[in-house]
Amino acid sequence: MNQPTTDYRPMWEALGLDLPAHDALLAAIPVLYQNAYLTQADRPEGMAYFDFVMSEIHGLRIKELVDHRAAGGIVVGTFCLYVPEEIIRALGGQCVGLCAGAEWAYGEVERILPQNTCALIKSFVGFKLGKVCPYVESADLVVGETTCDGKKKAYELFADLAPLHVMELPQMKRPQDRVLWRAEIEQLIAKLEEVSGLELTAENLAAATKEVNDKRRALQRLNAARRASPVPISGKDALLAVQVAFYDDVPRFTAMVNKIADELEVRVAAGEGVAPADAPRLLVTGTPMSIPNWKLHDVIEKAGAAVVMEEMCTGSRYYSRLVDESPKDLPAMIDALTDKYLDINCACFTPNSARIGDVIRLAREYEADGIVQCDLHFCGPYQVEATLVERAAKAAGIPTLRIDTDYSVGDIAQLTTRVEAFLEMIE
Amino acid sequence: MNQPTTDYRPMWEALGLDLPAHDALLAAIPVLYQNAYLTQADRPEGMAYFDFVMSEIHGLRIKELVDHRAAGGIVVGTFCLYVPEEIIRALGGQCVGLCAGAEWAYGEVERILPQNTCALIKSFVGFKLGKVCPYVESADLVVGETTCDGKKKAYELFADLAPLHVMELPQMKRPQDRVLWRAEIEQLIAKLEEVSGLELTAENLAAATKEVNDKRRALQRLNAARRASPVPISGKDALLAVQVAFYDDVPRFTAMVNKIADELEVRVAAGEGVAPADAPRLLVTGTPMSIPNWKLHDVIEKAGAAVVMEEMCTGSRYYSRLVDESPKDLPAMIDALTDKYLDINCACFTPNSARIGDVIRLAREYEADGIVQCDLHFCGPYQVEATLVERAAKAAGIPTLRIDTDYSVGDIAQLTTRVEAFLEMIE
Repeated sequence: MNQPTTDYRPMWEALGLDLPAHDALLAAIPVLYQNAYLTQADRPEGMAYFDFVMSEIHGLRIKELVDHRAAGGIVVGTFCLYVPEEIIRALGGQCVGLCAGAEWAYGEVERILPQNTCALIKSFVGFKLGKVCPYVESADLVVGETTCDGKKKAYELFADLAPLHVMELPQMKRPQDRVLWRAEIEQLIAKLEEVSGLELTAENLAAATKEVNDKRRALQRLNAARRASPVPISGKDALLAVQVAFYDDVPRFTAMVNKIADELEVRVAAGEGVAPADAPRLLVTGTPMSIPNWKLHDVIEKAGAAVVMEEMCTGSRYYSRLVDESPKDLPAMIDALTDKYLDINCACFTPNSARIGDVIRLAREYEADGIVQCDLHFCGPYQVEATLVERAAKAAGIPTLRIDTDYSVGDIAQLTTRVEAFLEMIE
Repeated sequence: MNQPTTDYRPMWEALGLDLPAHDALLAAIPVLYQNAYLTQADRPEGMAYFDFVMSEIHGLRIKELVDHRAAGGIVVGTFCLYVPEEIIRALGGQCVGLCAGAEWAYGEVERILPQNTCALIKSFVGFKLGKVCPYVESADLVVGETTCDGKKKAYELFADLAPLHVMELPQMKRPQDRVLWRAEIEQLIAKLEEVSGLELTAENLAAATKEVNDKRRALQRLNAARRASPVPISGKDALLAVQVAFYDDVPRFTAMVNKIADELEVRVAAGEGVAPADAPRLLVTGTPMSIPNWKLHDVIEKAGAAVVMEEMCTGSRYYSRLVDESPKDLPAMIDALTDKYLDINCACFTPNSARIGDVIRLAREYEADGIVQCDLHFCGPYQVEATLVERAAKAAGIPTLRIDTDYSVGDIAQLTTRVEAFLEMIE
């Protein structure tokens, strides 16, 4: 991964970043990336695009956002799949996921949030308090959601730090919950119309829906290739594609992912892969993994197994379901968005049995030899569901391994030992 | 506290309790009660009723419930203030809070729930798994609610263990949330009509509403007396009254609490109290304290201070707001229930600024010298709000102490040290 050649420091300074702290962060990520990514053999050539993206993640991409705003567009930051990117794009916005994959400014964070808060939440608050996330500093609006207790309550403090709009996600999926959720989408539209000064129309929403669906279709293609044995792309690279999907320019990203999918389909036809055909195949499920959190995938793949699918927000939940493009009038299009987003199976819902079904189905479709449940410490909803996933996997005859972790590197040796023992057990 | 003279073992056996385990539990509670309650000087005479209730909490009261069921009535168990007792009583039901104030069967609990689950949730699951709660074993239905992640997800496992109905509590308090909540109340009515075989009418609901309001009015009287200096009743005794309110026969409880209130009003007029007039006055706020969790109050009062108010579910949130009794037709009465219950200020709501206001207002009304925030370990919602309460208290010039604890006795010495240091600071 090359360091960017342009001097972005004046831009970062103008965004209000803490430059020395930001330098320290930017110095750390290439080391992690080098170790996890650039040591891999036989990577698809198309992944060079992602190497470039990673080298410019706080550089060129931020410059694009700055230019976008200078041209009158808006930037909207999100922390969650439930925020409809289609609406943001239809109103001329760029939707970006906010930084949340590394430990940062935890000392400051733990003065306002309990120590027993999950790493994702501590991280996003830390990146803001520490002034090292150019994405949140570029955002005209941050859109939060009431998915879990931790985020719901952290937003009450975050509201002092950034312009924030919170969507209330219902906790069940019955008709009355759909009514509530549709009203939330309507309120988001009103809010974004106010911030952008533009009006949502059937035309701009249709165009945005097609673009975002195209992104999902490209990821579906890339991930469909992972069913093959030998697997044509590492789990790490596939994970990175979804991680970058949250940040990148949509049409460019779609084109690049389709190019990789082309390459993978050639590999599959030729029986070529990145791991031996007899490498154990694992499905990973649980809480999301944000950049630069590649720890578990790296441990698994360095132990000789292949991650063949992620049932997570940085995985199948991101791309597996499209928005219905057939409605032509705005209310029906909003209905379609309502249905699509309510269909995501997050553990914040009760019950969430469809997710348990997804895990088992994907494990079978991808011929997984085992399921690794990886949850962040203190993420109660996924930790409780882990019991239900374990029961379902046992009934289906699929071995499982449970991992609770965070963003620290302190448990890598322990994770390696546990993963190796699991691989021995299933081989 | 006397041991019950009746032999309840055949009844407990018929309920399916684990008798040896239940014996062990029943042996432990009198020791705790003796130490916390019966060592107090100058207790109101009326508290003798509560000594009796505590001695019969798994005996006579359960016998009453068994007899009630034998006569065709239903028993409904709850874990939360948000479940409208009025509806249960209108349909001939007895509403009982379920056991959740002591560590029980945690080994079994932690096989299905994460270790980082709050004590209240571990406790109620443990009492059920360990078969030592005669209340849950007497229940025709348990009504849960989606207040926090921990309970919401634990109910998915609890549903395998007991007949369960879960109410979806919204996470905000806007008009559309009220619509959702009113529909939940309608669904609860339908469910309880089915279980009881009775029909809710304006008449039976009006009678039940008056009865439950009378209970609240009695508790309001008792607690109003605590504004006086010297304080005429200990915080421990006032806490016990609310704890018992969740279990006891409603009209009997109301009569007994009014009798204590009469006594307290005489004391106040005479300038008599249970603590010196110059004892530091503390307001306690945070997560609920279920029987036999008297730890913090006991520590505070043995350190020489007086707890003069509880802003908690086992405190002001239980009794401070009445249901409007003026509506005469069923839809309007259900509206009144909807409004009353949505007005409870639990940290599960976002934002929940009304609670912060309540804490400061109550601290002033009760002339508190300090606020003690006491939250259960891992209760994220209250732990985050603790930051907001601290800020508001600082602005109001009221010192605060933050305590995170559980049901163990292991931290009593540490709590004592911290409370004593706090009292020195505010004196």
